[in-house]
Amino acid sequence: MAKPLILVVNDDGITSHGIRTLIEVAKELGDVLVVAPDSPQSGMGHAITIGESLRLDPSDIYEGVEAYQCSGTPVDCVKLAKHYVLKGKQPDLVVSGINHGSNSSISVLYSGTMSAAIEAAIEGIPAIGFSLCDYSPMAEMSHIKKFVKQIMENVLQKGVPEGIALNVNFPAYSKQHPIKGIKICRQALSKWQEVFEERKDPHGRRYFWMSGQFENEDKGEDTDEVALANHYISIVPCSYDMTAHHSISRLNKDFIS
Amino acid sequence: MAKPLILVVNDDGITSHGIRTLIEVAKELGDVLVVAPDSPQSGMGHAITIGESLRLDPSDIYEGVEAYQCSGTPVDCVKLAKHYVLKGKQPDLVVSGINHGSNSSISVLYSGTMSAAIEAAIEGIPAIGFSLCDYSPMAEMSHIKKFVKQIMENVLQKGVPEGIALNVNFPAYSKQHPIKGIKICRQALSKWQEVFEERKDPHGRRYFWMSGQFENEDKGEDTDEVALANHYISIVPCSYDMTAHHSISRLNKDFIS
Repeated sequence: MAKPLILVVNDDGITSHGIRTLIEVAKELGDVLVVAPDSPQSGMGHAITIGESLRLDPSDIYEGVEAYQCSGTPVDCVKLAKHYVLKGKQPDLVVSGINHGSNSSISVLYSGTMSAAIEAAIEGIPAIGFSLCDYSPMAEMSHIKKFVKQIMENVLQKGVPEGIALNVNFPAYSKQHPIKGIKICRQALSKWQEVFEERKDPHGRRYFWMSGQFENEDKGEDTDEVALANHYISIVPCSYDMTAHHSISRLNKDFIS
Repeated sequence: MAKPLILVVNDDGITSHGIRTLIEVAKELGDVLVVAPDSPQSGMGHAITIGESLRLDPSDIYEGVEAYQCSGTPVDCVKLAKHYVLKGKQPDLVVSGINHGSNSSISVLYSGTMSAAIEAAIEGIPAIGFSLCDYSPMAEMSHIKKFVKQIMENVLQKGVPEGIALNVNFPAYSKQHPIKGIKICRQALSKWQEVFEERKDPHGRRYFWMSGQFENEDKGEDTDEVALANHYISIVPCSYDMTAHHSISRLNKDFIS
Protein backbone atom coordinates (compact mmCIF):
# COMPACT_ATOMS: atom_id res chain seq x y z
CA MET A 1 0.00 0.00 0.00
CA ALA A 2 1.19 3.53 -0.77
CA LYS A 3 2.21 5.61 2.20
CA PRO A 4 -0.15 8.46 3.07
CA LEU A 5 0.89 11.94 1.96
CA ILE A 6 1.03 14.30 4.93
CA LEU A 7 1.26 18.07 4.47
CA VAL A 8 2.86 19.85 7.43
CA VAL A 9 2.25 23.57 7.97
CA ASN A 10 2.47 25.95 10.93
CA ASP A 11 2.37 29.61 11.92
CA ASP A 12 5.56 29.96 13.98
CA GLY A 13 7.70 29.61 10.85
CA ILE A 14 9.58 26.80 9.14
CA THR A 15 12.52 26.81 11.60
CA SER A 16 10.48 26.50 14.79
CA HIS A 17 10.93 23.73 17.32
CA GLY A 18 7.23 22.86 17.05
CA ILE A 19 7.18 22.12 13.33
CA ARG A 20 10.43 20.16 13.65
CA THR A 21 8.77 17.95 16.25
CA LEU A 22 5.67 17.51 14.08
CA ILE A 23 7.77 16.59 11.04
CA GLU A 24 9.59 13.92 13.07
CA VAL A 25 6.27 12.28 13.98
CA ALA A 26 4.79 12.67 10.48
CA LYS A 27 7.84 10.93 8.92
CA GLU A 28 7.01 7.83 10.96
CA LEU A 29 3.55 7.70 9.38
CA GLY A 30 3.88 8.76 5.76
CA ASP A 31 5.50 10.82 3.03
CA VAL A 32 5.93 14.36 4.24
CA LEU A 33 5.61 17.66 2.40
CA VAL A 34 6.36 20.85 4.34
CA VAL A 35 5.09 24.28 3.24
CA ALA A 36 5.54 26.78 6.03
CA PRO A 37 5.99 30.53 6.53
CA ASP A 38 9.53 31.93 6.25
CA SER A 39 8.93 34.04 9.39
CA PRO A 40 6.63 33.91 12.42
CA GLN A 41 2.95 34.46 11.56
CA SER A 42 1.33 34.19 14.98
CA GLY A 43 -2.07 35.81 15.33
CA MET A 44 -2.64 35.91 11.57
CA GLY A 45 -5.98 34.11 11.80
CA HIS A 46 -7.47 33.30 8.41
CA ALA A 47 -5.55 36.09 6.64
CA ILE A 48 -4.58 35.61 3.00
CA THR A 49 -2.26 37.64 0.76
CA ILE A 50 -4.22 39.36 -1.99
CA GLY A 51 -2.76 42.87 -2.31
CA GLU A 52 0.84 41.69 -2.55
CA SER A 53 2.73 38.98 -4.38
CA LEU A 54 4.06 35.84 -2.71
CA ARG A 55 7.42 34.07 -2.57
CA LEU A 56 7.72 30.29 -2.38
CA ASP A 57 11.24 28.86 -2.27
CA PRO A 58 12.54 25.33 -1.70
CA SER A 59 14.27 24.66 1.62
CA ASP A 60 16.71 21.89 2.55
CA ILE A 61 16.62 22.28 6.32
CA TYR A 62 14.81 18.98 6.86
CA GLU A 63 16.91 16.10 5.54
CA GLY A 64 15.03 13.86 3.16
CA VAL A 65 11.88 15.97 3.33
CA GLU A 66 10.47 18.06 0.47
CA ALA A 67 10.05 21.49 2.03
CA TYR A 68 9.19 25.04 0.93
CA GLN A 69 9.24 28.34 2.75
CA CYS A 70 6.63 30.92 1.90
CA SER A 71 6.46 34.68 2.46
CA GLY A 72 2.72 34.51 3.15
CA THR A 73 0.36 33.47 5.89
CA PRO A 74 -0.40 29.94 7.15
CA VAL A 75 -3.54 29.86 4.98
CA ASP A 76 -1.50 30.97 1.95
CA CYS A 77 0.81 27.99 2.64
CA VAL A 78 -2.08 25.52 2.43
CA LYS A 79 -3.38 27.11 -0.77
CA LEU A 80 0.08 27.13 -2.40
CA ALA A 81 0.72 23.53 -1.32
CA LYS A 82 -2.54 22.29 -2.78
CA HIS A 83 -2.81 24.37 -5.94
CA TYR A 84 0.84 24.90 -6.86
CA VAL A 85 3.18 22.32 -5.29
CA LEU A 86 0.72 19.41 -5.53
CA LYS A 87 -1.01 20.67 -8.71
CA GLY A 88 -4.42 20.13 -7.12
CA LYS A 89 -3.71 16.64 -5.71
CA GLN A 90 -5.22 16.12 -2.23
CA PRO A 91 -2.89 15.19 0.64
CA ASP A 92 -4.29 12.44 2.87
CA LEU A 93 -3.81 14.57 5.96
CA VAL A 94 -2.85 18.14 6.84
CA VAL A 95 -1.22 18.75 10.23
CA SER A 96 -0.49 22.23 11.52
CA GLY A 97 1.77 23.20 14.40
CA ILE A 98 2.92 22.24 16.89
CA ASN A 99 2.06 25.75 18.01
CA HIS A 100 4.10 27.37 20.77
CA GLY A 101 1.15 28.50 22.88
CA SER A 102 -2.47 27.62 23.54
CA ASN A 103 -5.15 27.85 20.86
CA SER A 104 -8.05 26.88 23.09
CA SER A 105 -11.28 28.83 23.58
CA ILE A 106 -11.55 32.04 21.54
CA SER A 107 -7.87 31.86 20.49
CA VAL A 108 -8.98 29.48 17.72
CA LEU A 109 -10.17 32.57 15.80
CA TYR A 110 -6.83 34.44 16.01
CA SER A 111 -4.72 31.36 15.42
CA GLY A 112 -2.81 30.93 12.18
CA THR A 113 -2.18 27.32 13.20
CA MET A 114 -5.88 26.52 13.35
CA SER A 115 -6.78 28.64 10.32
CA ALA A 116 -4.37 26.55 8.23
CA ALA A 117 -6.13 23.39 9.45
CA ILE A 118 -9.55 24.92 8.76
CA GLU A 119 -8.42 25.93 5.26
CA ALA A 120 -7.55 22.27 4.65
CA ALA A 121 -11.02 21.27 5.90
CA ILE A 122 -12.54 23.71 3.39
CA GLU A 123 -10.60 21.81 0.72
CA GLY A 124 -12.07 18.55 2.00
CA ILE A 125 -8.80 17.29 3.53
CA PRO A 126 -8.74 15.73 7.04
CA ALA A 127 -6.85 18.24 9.17
CA ILE A 128 -5.52 18.66 12.67
CA GLY A 129 -4.08 21.72 14.40
CA PHE A 130 -1.75 20.91 17.32
CA SER A 131 -0.91 23.45 20.02
CA LEU A 132 1.00 23.22 23.27
CA CYS A 133 0.10 25.43 26.24
CA ASP A 134 3.67 26.70 26.51
CA TYR A 135 4.81 29.86 24.67
CA SER A 136 8.53 29.20 25.08
CA PRO A 137 10.40 28.83 21.75
CA MET A 138 12.22 25.81 23.20
CA ALA A 139 9.17 24.33 24.95
CA GLU A 140 9.47 20.72 26.12
CA MET A 141 7.52 18.56 23.67
CA SER A 142 8.79 15.06 24.50
CA HIS A 143 5.71 14.31 26.61
CA ILE A 144 3.28 14.85 23.73
CA LYS A 145 4.96 13.08 20.80
CA LYS A 146 3.23 9.76 21.40
CA PHE A 147 -0.16 11.47 21.60
CA VAL A 148 0.49 13.47 18.42
CA LYS A 149 1.26 10.20 16.65
CA GLN A 150 -1.77 8.43 18.10
CA ILE A 151 -4.15 11.23 17.05
CA MET A 152 -2.69 11.37 13.54
CA GLU A 153 -2.95 7.57 13.17
CA ASN A 154 -6.54 7.69 14.35
CA VAL A 155 -7.46 10.35 11.77
CA LEU A 156 -5.57 8.57 8.96
CA GLN A 157 -7.57 5.43 9.78
CA LYS A 158 -11.03 6.82 10.55
CA GLY A 159 -11.05 10.25 8.90
CA VAL A 160 -12.89 13.19 10.44
CA PRO A 161 -16.52 14.29 10.07
CA GLU A 162 -17.09 16.27 6.84
CA GLY A 163 -16.08 19.92 6.98
CA ILE A 164 -14.32 19.54 10.32
CA ALA A 165 -10.78 20.33 11.49
CA LEU A 166 -9.61 19.16 14.89
CA ASN A 167 -8.26 21.72 17.36
CA VAL A 168 -5.91 19.73 19.63
CA ASN A 169 -4.36 21.46 22.66
CA PHE A 170 -1.83 19.82 24.98
CA PRO A 171 -1.10 20.76 28.58
CA ALA A 172 2.44 22.09 29.10
CA TYR A 173 5.00 19.61 30.43
CA SER A 174 4.64 19.00 34.14
CA LYS A 175 6.49 16.38 36.18
CA GLN A 176 3.80 16.56 38.89
CA HIS A 177 0.87 16.33 36.50
CA PRO A 178 1.41 13.95 33.59
CA ILE A 179 -1.22 13.98 30.83
CA LYS A 180 -4.26 11.92 31.86
CA GLY A 181 -5.77 11.29 28.43
CA ILE A 182 -7.97 12.88 25.78
CA LYS A 183 -11.28 14.75 26.15
CA ILE A 184 -13.53 15.71 23.22
CA CYS A 185 -14.70 19.22 24.09
CA ARG A 186 -16.51 22.29 22.93
CA GLN A 187 -14.74 25.67 22.62
CA ALA A 188 -15.03 27.64 25.88
CA LEU A 189 -17.00 30.83 25.11
CA SER A 190 -14.77 33.47 26.61
CA LYS A 191 -12.47 36.27 25.54
CA TRP A 192 -9.13 37.97 26.07
CA GLN A 193 -9.01 41.11 28.15
CA GLU A 194 -6.72 43.39 26.17
CA VAL A 195 -4.37 45.99 27.57
CA PHE A 196 -2.69 48.58 25.35
CA GLU A 197 0.57 49.85 26.69
CA GLU A 198 1.34 53.34 25.41
CA ARG A 199 4.98 54.26 24.71
CA LYS A 200 6.82 57.09 23.01
CA ASP A 201 9.25 56.44 20.16
CA PRO A 202 12.62 58.34 19.99
CA HIS A 203 10.83 61.06 17.96
CA GLY A 204 8.19 61.62 20.63
CA ARG A 205 5.39 59.92 18.69
CA ARG A 206 3.25 57.49 20.61
CA TYR A 207 2.79 53.84 19.76
CA PHE A 208 1.17 50.87 21.44
CA TRP A 209 1.88 47.31 22.41
CA MET A 210 -1.12 45.04 22.70
CA SER A 211 -1.08 42.49 25.45
CA GLY A 212 -3.80 40.84 27.39
CA GLN A 213 -5.00 38.21 29.73
CA PHE A 214 -7.31 35.33 29.12
CA GLU A 215 -9.83 34.48 31.78
CA ASN A 216 -12.37 31.73 31.24
CA GLU A 217 -15.88 33.09 31.80
CA ASP A 218 -17.55 29.93 30.52
CA LYS A 219 -18.75 27.89 33.50
CA GLY A 220 -19.54 24.72 31.50
CA GLU A 221 -17.77 21.47 32.36
CA ASP A 222 -17.41 20.29 28.76
CA THR A 223 -15.02 22.96 27.49
CA ASP A 224 -11.44 22.76 26.26
CA GLU A 225 -10.35 25.04 29.11
CA VAL A 226 -11.67 22.67 31.76
CA ALA A 227 -10.06 19.64 30.10
CA LEU A 228 -6.66 21.38 29.93
CA ALA A 229 -6.91 22.62 33.53
CA ASN A 230 -7.45 19.00 34.56
CA HIS A 231 -4.35 17.79 32.66
CA TYR A 232 -6.23 16.32 29.69
CA ILE A 233 -5.58 16.87 26.00
CA SER A 234 -8.54 18.82 24.55
CA ILE A 235 -9.88 18.06 21.08
CA VAL A 236 -12.51 20.45 19.69
CA PRO A 237 -14.09 19.73 16.29
CA CYS A 238 -14.14 23.05 14.39
CA SER A 239 -16.43 23.93 11.52
CA TYR A 240 -15.98 26.59 8.84
CA ASP A 241 -19.73 27.11 8.77
CA MET A 242 -20.04 30.29 10.82
CA THR A 243 -23.84 30.37 10.50
CA ALA A 244 -25.68 30.54 13.82
CA HIS A 245 -28.45 28.29 12.51
CA HIS A 246 -30.39 28.50 15.76
CA SER A 247 -30.96 32.25 15.40
CA ILE A 248 -32.34 32.25 11.84
CA SER A 249 -35.97 32.01 12.97
CA ARG A 250 -35.63 34.93 15.41
CA LEU A 251 -34.01 37.09 12.71
CA ASN A 252 -36.82 36.22 10.32
CA LYS A 253 -39.24 37.58 12.90
CA ASP A 254 -37.10 40.68 13.55
CA PHE A 255 -36.39 41.58 9.93
CA ILE A 256 -39.00 40.09 7.63
CA SER A 257 -42.39 39.94 9.32
CA MET B 1 -32.72 60.20 25.48
CA ALA B 2 -28.99 59.96 24.76
CA LYS B 3 -28.07 59.20 21.20
CA PRO B 4 -26.61 55.73 20.62
CA LEU B 5 -22.84 55.49 20.24
CA ILE B 6 -21.93 53.85 16.95
CA LEU B 7 -18.41 52.63 16.26
CA VAL B 8 -17.56 52.49 12.56
CA VAL B 9 -14.70 50.28 11.31
CA ASN B 10 -13.75 48.70 7.99
CA ASP B 11 -10.99 46.84 6.17
CA ASP B 12 -10.58 48.92 3.02
CA GLY B 13 -9.01 51.77 4.99
CA ILE B 14 -10.24 55.01 6.51
CA THR B 15 -10.35 56.91 3.19
CA SER B 16 -12.48 54.42 1.28
CA HIS B 17 -15.76 55.29 -0.39
CA GLY B 18 -17.49 52.50 1.54
CA ILE B 19 -16.66 53.74 5.04
CA ARG B 20 -17.54 57.30 4.02
CA THR B 21 -21.00 56.08 2.97
CA LEU B 22 -21.42 54.14 6.21
CA ILE B 23 -20.40 57.17 8.30
CA GLU B 24 -23.02 59.30 6.51
CA VAL B 25 -25.75 56.85 7.48
CA ALA B 26 -24.46 56.33 11.02
CA LYS B 27 -24.46 60.11 11.64
CA GLU B 28 -28.22 60.13 11.02
CA LEU B 29 -28.71 57.60 13.81
CA GLY B 30 -26.26 58.41 16.58
CA ASP B 31 -22.91 59.70 17.78
CA VAL B 32 -20.17 58.29 15.60
CA LEU B 33 -16.65 57.13 16.45
CA VAL B 34 -14.42 55.95 13.61
CA VAL B 35 -11.39 53.73 14.16
CA ALA B 36 -10.19 52.34 10.86
CA PRO B 37 -6.99 51.05 9.22
CA ASP B 38 -4.63 53.63 7.70
CA SER B 39 -4.21 51.40 4.62
CA PRO B 40 -6.21 48.65 2.90
CA GLN B 41 -6.46 45.44 4.96
CA SER B 42 -8.53 43.23 2.69
CA GLY B 43 -8.24 39.50 3.28
CA MET B 44 -6.85 39.96 6.79
CA GLY B 45 -9.49 37.74 8.39
CA HIS B 46 -9.26 37.69 12.17
CA ALA B 47 -5.57 38.67 12.23
CA ILE B 48 -4.26 40.70 15.18
CA THR B 49 -0.93 42.46 15.66
CA ILE B 50 1.09 40.76 18.39
CA GLY B 51 4.70 40.67 17.16
CA GLU B 52 4.81 44.37 16.27
CA SER B 53 3.72 47.63 17.85
CA LEU B 54 0.71 49.64 16.70
CA ARG B 55 0.10 53.25 15.72
CA LEU B 56 -3.18 55.04 16.43
CA ASP B 57 -3.44 58.67 15.35
CA PRO B 58 -6.35 61.11 15.26
CA SER B 59 -7.74 62.00 11.85
CA ASP B 60 -9.81 65.02 10.79
CA ILE B 61 -10.98 63.78 7.42
CA TYR B 62 -14.61 63.42 8.54
CA GLU B 63 -16.01 66.78 9.64
CA GLY B 64 -17.55 66.72 13.08
CA VAL B 65 -16.67 63.06 13.62
CA GLU B 66 -14.11 61.73 16.12
CA ALA B 67 -11.88 59.52 14.01
CA TYR B 68 -8.62 57.59 14.36
CA GLN B 69 -6.46 55.78 11.86
CA CYS B 70 -4.63 52.68 12.96
CA SER B 71 -1.63 50.84 11.53
CA GLY B 72 -3.13 47.46 12.43
CA THR B 73 -5.81 45.11 11.25
CA PRO B 74 -9.61 45.58 11.38
CA VAL B 75 -9.74 43.45 14.56
CA ASP B 76 -6.97 45.59 16.12
CA CYS B 77 -9.16 48.64 15.39
CA VAL B 78 -12.07 47.19 17.38
CA LYS B 79 -9.80 46.26 20.28
CA LEU B 80 -8.13 49.71 20.34
CA ALA B 81 -11.50 51.45 20.10
CA LYS B 82 -12.96 49.50 23.01
CA HIS B 83 -9.98 49.27 25.33
CA TYR B 84 -8.06 52.47 24.55
CA VAL B 85 -10.27 55.16 22.95
CA LEU B 86 -13.43 54.28 24.90
CA LYS B 87 -11.58 53.10 28.05
CA GLY B 88 -13.69 49.95 28.14
CA LYS B 89 -17.07 51.61 27.55
CA GLN B 90 -19.33 49.60 25.22
CA PRO B 91 -20.60 51.24 22.02
CA ASP B 92 -24.29 50.56 21.35
CA LEU B 93 -23.51 49.26 17.89
CA VAL B 94 -20.47 48.40 15.78
CA VAL B 95 -20.81 48.65 12.01
CA SER B 96 -18.09 47.50 9.64
CA GLY B 97 -17.73 48.30 5.96
CA ILE B 98 -19.23 49.05 3.56
CA ASN B 99 -16.85 46.56 1.99
CA HIS B 100 -15.96 46.91 -1.66
CA GLY B 101 -16.67 43.32 -2.67
CA SER B 102 -18.76 40.36 -1.57
CA ASN B 103 -18.27 38.64 1.78
CA SER B 104 -20.86 35.93 1.24
CA SER B 105 -20.29 32.18 1.57
CA ILE B 106 -16.77 31.14 2.61
CA SER B 107 -15.43 34.70 2.12
CA VAL B 108 -16.72 35.46 5.63
CA LEU B 109 -13.61 33.66 6.96
CA TYR B 110 -11.10 35.73 4.95
CA SER B 111 -12.93 39.01 5.45
CA GLY B 112 -11.46 41.72 7.67
CA THR B 113 -14.82 43.49 7.49
CA MET B 114 -16.65 40.56 9.03
CA SER B 115 -13.86 39.71 11.49
CA ALA B 116 -14.15 43.23 12.92
CA ALA B 117 -17.90 42.67 13.39
CA ILE B 118 -17.29 39.25 14.95
CA GLU B 119 -14.70 40.74 17.31
CA ALA B 120 -17.39 43.18 18.47
CA ALA B 121 -19.77 40.25 19.02
CA ILE B 122 -17.09 38.58 21.17
CA GLU B 123 -17.13 41.77 23.26
CA GLY B 124 -20.91 41.50 23.59
CA ILE B 125 -21.65 44.45 21.28
CA PRO B 126 -24.37 44.21 18.59
CA ALA B 127 -22.48 44.24 15.30
CA ILE B 128 -23.12 44.29 11.58
CA GLY B 129 -20.72 43.82 8.67
CA PHE B 130 -21.92 45.40 5.41
CA SER B 131 -20.53 44.36 2.02
CA LEU B 132 -21.46 45.26 -1.54
CA CYS B 133 -20.98 42.77 -4.38
CA ASP B 134 -18.96 45.28 -6.37
CA TYR B 135 -15.15 45.45 -6.05
CA SER B 136 -14.79 48.86 -7.71
CA PRO B 137 -13.24 51.54 -5.44
CA MET B 138 -15.94 53.97 -6.62
CA ALA B 139 -18.81 51.47 -6.54
CA GLU B 140 -22.33 52.89 -6.72
CA MET B 141 -23.81 52.75 -3.21
CA SER B 142 -26.81 55.09 -3.50
CA HIS B 143 -29.21 52.15 -3.93
CA ILE B 144 -28.27 50.57 -0.59
CA LYS B 145 -28.16 53.55 1.79
CA LYS B 146 -31.80 53.26 2.84
CA PHE B 147 -31.36 49.54 3.55
CA VAL B 148 -28.16 50.14 5.55
CA LYS B 149 -30.08 52.62 7.67
CA GLN B 150 -33.09 50.33 8.06
CA ILE B 151 -30.93 47.38 9.17
CA MET B 152 -28.99 49.55 11.64
CA GLU B 153 -32.22 50.97 13.10
CA ASN B 154 -33.64 47.49 13.45
CA VAL B 155 -30.58 46.28 15.36
CA LEU B 156 -30.45 49.41 17.56
CA GLN B 157 -34.08 48.74 18.45
CA LYS B 158 -34.21 44.95 18.79
CA GLY B 159 -30.56 43.96 19.34
CA VAL B 160 -29.15 40.73 17.93
CA PRO B 161 -29.10 37.22 19.40
CA GLU B 162 -26.27 36.77 21.93
CA GLY B 163 -22.85 36.11 20.43
CA ILE B 164 -23.99 36.89 16.90
CA ALA B 165 -22.71 39.34 14.27
CA LEU B 166 -24.77 39.93 11.12
CA ASN B 167 -23.13 39.41 7.74
CA VAL B 168 -25.07 41.65 5.35
CA ASN B 169 -24.32 41.49 1.61
CA PHE B 170 -25.94 43.73 -0.99
CA PRO B 171 -26.32 43.04 -4.71
CA ALA B 172 -24.36 45.43 -6.92
CA TYR B 173 -26.29 48.31 -8.44
CA SER B 174 -28.38 47.27 -11.41
CA LYS B 175 -30.95 49.42 -13.22
CA GLN B 176 -32.64 46.29 -14.59
CA HIS B 177 -32.77 44.48 -11.26
CA PRO B 178 -33.52 46.68 -8.27
CA ILE B 179 -33.18 45.11 -4.81
CA LYS B 180 -36.27 43.04 -3.98
CA GLY B 181 -35.88 42.91 -0.18
CA ILE B 182 -34.08 41.06 2.59
CA LYS B 183 -33.56 37.31 3.07
CA ILE B 184 -32.23 35.74 6.27
CA CYS B 185 -29.86 33.02 5.05
CA ARG B 186 -27.25 30.48 5.96
CA GLN B 187 -23.68 30.72 4.65
CA ALA B 188 -23.32 28.78 1.37
CA LEU B 189 -20.82 25.97 1.96
CA SER B 190 -18.47 26.40 -0.94
CA LYS B 191 -14.94 27.54 -1.67
CA TRP B 192 -12.70 29.59 -3.93
CA GLN B 193 -10.76 27.83 -6.66
CA GLU B 194 -7.32 29.42 -6.43
CA VAL B 195 -4.91 29.98 -9.28
CA PHE B 196 -1.28 30.99 -8.67
CA GLU B 197 0.24 32.93 -11.51
CA GLU B 198 4.02 32.50 -11.61
CA ARG B 199 6.14 35.47 -12.68
CA LYS B 200 9.85 36.38 -12.68
CA ASP B 201 11.10 39.53 -10.97
CA PRO B 202 13.80 41.72 -12.65
CA HIS B 203 16.45 39.57 -10.88
CA GLY B 204 15.10 36.32 -12.34
CA ARG B 205 13.58 35.11 -9.07
CA ARG B 206 10.08 33.74 -9.24
CA TYR B 207 7.10 35.09 -7.35
CA PHE B 208 3.38 34.45 -7.39
CA TRP B 209 0.11 36.27 -7.58
CA MET B 210 -2.86 34.53 -6.04
CA SER B 211 -6.13 34.89 -7.80
CA GLY B 212 -9.15 32.68 -7.96
CA GLN B 213 -12.73 32.11 -8.84
CA PHE B 214 -15.66 31.46 -6.62
CA GLU B 215 -18.19 28.90 -7.71
CA ASN B 216 -21.12 27.98 -5.51
CA GLU B 217 -21.16 24.22 -4.97
CA ASP B 218 -23.91 24.40 -2.33
CA LYS B 219 -27.21 23.40 -3.92
CA GLY B 220 -29.40 24.55 -1.01
CA GLU B 221 -32.06 27.19 -1.63
CA ASP B 222 -31.58 28.96 1.72
CA THR B 223 -28.04 30.29 1.20
CA ASP B 224 -26.68 33.83 0.90
CA GLU B 225 -25.50 33.06 -2.64
CA VAL B 226 -29.02 32.18 -3.81
CA ALA B 227 -30.52 35.29 -2.18
CA LEU B 228 -27.94 37.56 -3.86
CA ALA B 229 -28.36 35.87 -7.25
CA ASN B 230 -32.09 36.63 -6.96
CA HIS B 231 -31.49 40.33 -6.20
CA TYR B 232 -32.13 40.10 -2.46
CA ILE B 233 -29.98 41.42 0.39
CA SER B 234 -28.59 38.43 2.31
CA ILE B 235 -28.26 38.50 6.10
CA VAL B 236 -26.40 35.60 7.72
CA PRO B 237 -26.13 35.43 11.52
CA CYS B 238 -22.50 34.51 12.32
CA SER B 239 -21.26 32.92 15.52
CA TYR B 240 -17.75 32.92 16.96
CA ASP B 241 -18.38 29.47 18.39
CA MET B 242 -16.49 27.35 15.86
CA THR B 243 -17.41 24.09 17.62
CA ALA B 244 -19.11 21.53 15.40
CA HIS B 245 -21.35 20.40 18.24
CA HIS B 246 -23.04 17.74 16.10
CA SER B 247 -19.80 15.81 15.65
CA ILE B 248 -18.78 15.55 19.30
CA SER B 249 -20.50 12.19 19.83
CA ARG B 250 -18.84 10.64 16.76
CA LEU B 251 -15.42 11.86 17.92
CA ASN B 252 -16.04 10.41 21.36
CA LYS B 253 -16.58 7.04 19.67
CA ASP B 254 -13.51 7.46 17.43
CA PHE B 255 -11.10 8.68 20.11
CA ILE B 256 -12.23 7.64 23.55
CA SER B 257 -14.03 4.29 23.46
